[in-house]
Amino acid sequence: MAFINDHYLKLKAGYLFPEIARRVKQFSDQHPDKAKSLIRCGIGDVTEPLPRAAVEAMHRAVDELAHRETFRGYGPEQGYEFLRRAIAENDYRKQGISIGDDEVFVSDGSKCDCSNILDIFGDRNRIAVVDPVYPVYVDSNVMAGHTGPADDSGAYEGLIYLPCTKRNGFVPDVIGSRVDLIYLCFPNNPTGAVATKEQLKHWVDYALTVGAVILYDAAYEAYISDPAIPHSIYEIPGALECAIEFRSLSKNAGFTGVRCGFTILPKSLLALSSTGDKKMLHALWNRRFSTKSNGVSYIVQRGAEAIYSEEGQAQVKALIDHYMGNAAILSAALRSTGLEVFGGTNAPYVWVAAPDGYTSWQVFDKVLRDIQVVVTPGAGFGAQGEGYFRVSAFNSAPNAREAARRFQEVKW
Amino acid sequence: MAFINDHYLKLKAGYLFPEIARRVKQFSDQHPDKAKSLIRCGIGDVTEPLPRAAVEAMHRAVDELAHRETFRGYGPEQGYEFLRRAIAENDYRKQGISIGDDEVFVSDGSKCDCSNILDIFGDRNRIAVVDPVYPVYVDSNVMAGHTGPADDSGAYEGLIYLPCTKRNGFVPDVIGSRVDLIYLCFPNNPTGAVATKEQLKHWVDYALTVGAVILYDAAYEAYISDPAIPHSIYEIPGALECAIEFRSLSKNAGFTGVRCGFTILPKSLLALSSTGDKKMLHALWNRRFSTKSNGVSYIVQRGAEAIYSEEGQAQVKALIDHYMGNAAILSAALRSTGLEVFGGTNAPYVWVAAPDGYTSWQVFDKVLRDIQVVVTPGAGFGAQGEGYFRVSAFNSAPNAREAARRFQEVKW
Repeated sequence: MAFINDHYLKLKAGYLFPEIARRVKQFSDQHPDKAKSLIRCGIGDVTEPLPRAAVEAMHRAVDELAHRETFRGYGPEQGYEFLRRAIAENDYRKQGISIGDDEVFVSDGSKCDCSNILDIFGDRNRIAVVDPVYPVYVDSNVMAGHTGPADDSGAYEGLIYLPCTKRNGFVPDVIGSRVDLIYLCFPNNPTGAVATKEQLKHWVDYALTVGAVILYDAAYEAYISDPAIPHSIYEIPGALECAIEFRSLSKNAGFTGVRCGFTILPKSLLALSSTGDKKMLHALWNRRFSTKSNGVSYIVQRGAEAIYSEEGQAQVKALIDHYMGNAAILSAALRSTGLEVFGGTNAPYVWVAAPDGYTSWQVFDKVLRDIQVVVTPGAGFGAQGEGYFRVSAFNSAPNAREAARRFQEVKW
Repeated sequence: MAFINDHYLKLKAGYLFPEIARRVKQFSDQHPDKAKSLIRCGIGDVTEPLPRAAVEAMHRAVDELAHRETFRGYGPEQGYEFLRRAIAENDYRKQGISIGDDEVFVSDGSKCDCSNILDIFGDRNRIAVVDPVYPVYVDSNVMAGHTGPADDSGAYEGLIYLPCTKRNGFVPDVIGSRVDLIYLCFPNNPTGAVATKEQLKHWVDYALTVGAVILYDAAYEAYISDPAIPHSIYEIPGALECAIEFRSLSKNAGFTGVRCGFTILPKSLLALSSTGDKKMLHALWNRRFSTKSNGVSYIVQRGAEAIYSEEGQAQVKALIDHYMGNAAILSAALRSTGLEVFGGTNAPYVWVAAPDGYTSWQVFDKVLRDIQVVVTPGAGFGAQGEGYFRVSAFNSAPNAREAARRFQEVKW
């Protein structure tokens, strides 16, 4: 009889967001009147319409596919040259970072890339994740059989958790023990923390010393306002030899429903075969795309390309300004109630310490019940997230203002 | 130091189609004049514009995303309810097959599904593939570590190959030895063969007896013209307990560049955990989507939904008629030259026995050189493909007619 992949059975019950959805639905069913004024600051999903440049480009692309003369079928699995070049040129080469067009791999989103990347790595790697953490990093390792079972706190045996706490400013210190793969995410989801060049340099130096690969999730880089904070790990010397970078158009251009992201895999990145030979990870990732994918919708790729036009960049900036305006309002309101507030200045997430005596799910339930605002409980992101909650700035301005007003009414 | 996934190193040099592209480019560089009249009957890529219904639906969807009131961000990872229902209702329930909306998983293409499905199966399964075979089935198993190295013929140790030959009408016989996963594809790529209800019943009965799972690729079902031939494996009693079906909008609705396919995973399908418990594969596949994907572009899903409208279905039928008209012309021309011709009546592929003394790559080279037509050498699909070549009917009508004319000029 056929066998399942047993590792799936180790996964803890629900992915965080379905559990939030369940509780919100239960509340709404029980209090249909109150539910009408519900404001969602939970999941990090954009609310504002797409940039005009992307809309127009996608209309044109649809029309191209409607006529034989301009019809296109299968595209290159790794992405069209026009988009790979736009990304490499604008996001990297113009910033002084030497990335070739063929080191850009276009995908249907960063969530897929962050999990699929494990396909090209072996089973013997020691893996470190930050804590709190985007659940996909952990769950995809569990599914791949890289961990043992979870303990009561939800921590999986075999993973090395890097605590991100108030003490270290939510940026993990370089560790003493040796690991082979390290997940880092800055600006961070969920804490909103950013890493300085110096902090990232410690990690790059560490990775170069031990031969580790850093999996760097930069999905929120567009929200960085401080000019001293690096947008890409490749701003750190040596990172081209030790880091893979993931980016997304979801949070800057509002593509959460359109679906487009990309991975940078430099050709200079090597890892060991079991016979001790050094191999280019680029070749493996390239092969994975060829065999397991047929690339991203042509329509979507044209929309993504348009984001890199002058007009597109201005429209993206307006979107970022909008969400960061919300973040400022929400941060200020929460701080004015005496709560300790982090993030929210270089990231669209505000990370708030729960008042004394509250767990993060208790805050979730109370805020939902008392002011009909949905937040995300920190515990959903890992053991170190307990005692915190995340407030997302992804909202309309009126909703953000109203949520800010209501936060000031909560009696803790 | 980080370790790579060593199994990738077992993969034979190139995926078939890049090798074809390389030889075509070399010929074109050497003979730029002749290359101008090149006709591509190699890769199975559509050439005709998208159905009008899909074009209009995608324009509307782009406009929805351009306005705050109708904007949509993240959708359900497994696909929007509107599309899952359209698929379950039209492709299955209207045909008398009981498939629930939530047994439909929408993806960005069948190639992804056919390879990703291995994620939910364990490493101890004995795996059978047809030969000749769509290379993705084999390569994804190699990458997952389910095989040993390849021998000189390209066959991988540990895989069980099911020969599809002229003797068995290119439909493999049920085998004596026991396997756990069986890949079947009908209408077949590359042979164009179809399986009768009786032939499929043998396989379903076999799978039910030994507890195997059939991975049934029905990407070409829309090309079936014979009313006695099943479009879905679920037309066979018992298949809901032993088969996963893959379908695509690429070849019926011309979505090769738009990207949409789907998998049917019935809740009645069980497989063993290593402790001997029977588990629902549906739950695992559902979890895989939640964790490793954010679903398919909303724009694409609206385009796919439109294919199921009355208007959309008529437009799809016109596309199928077009390509099958080409298949008839190409089959007749090849047959008239004395070659032995298979397929081409219930599938868009014509499978031709190479003249005596020619290997399939020799046919490829000669046809390219003499008449500037690109075909696919059978050997690229497996050992049993040697001695055959595939001619694709995906072309404009003038190109198909011209290719047919040229085939009659070849001096073998």
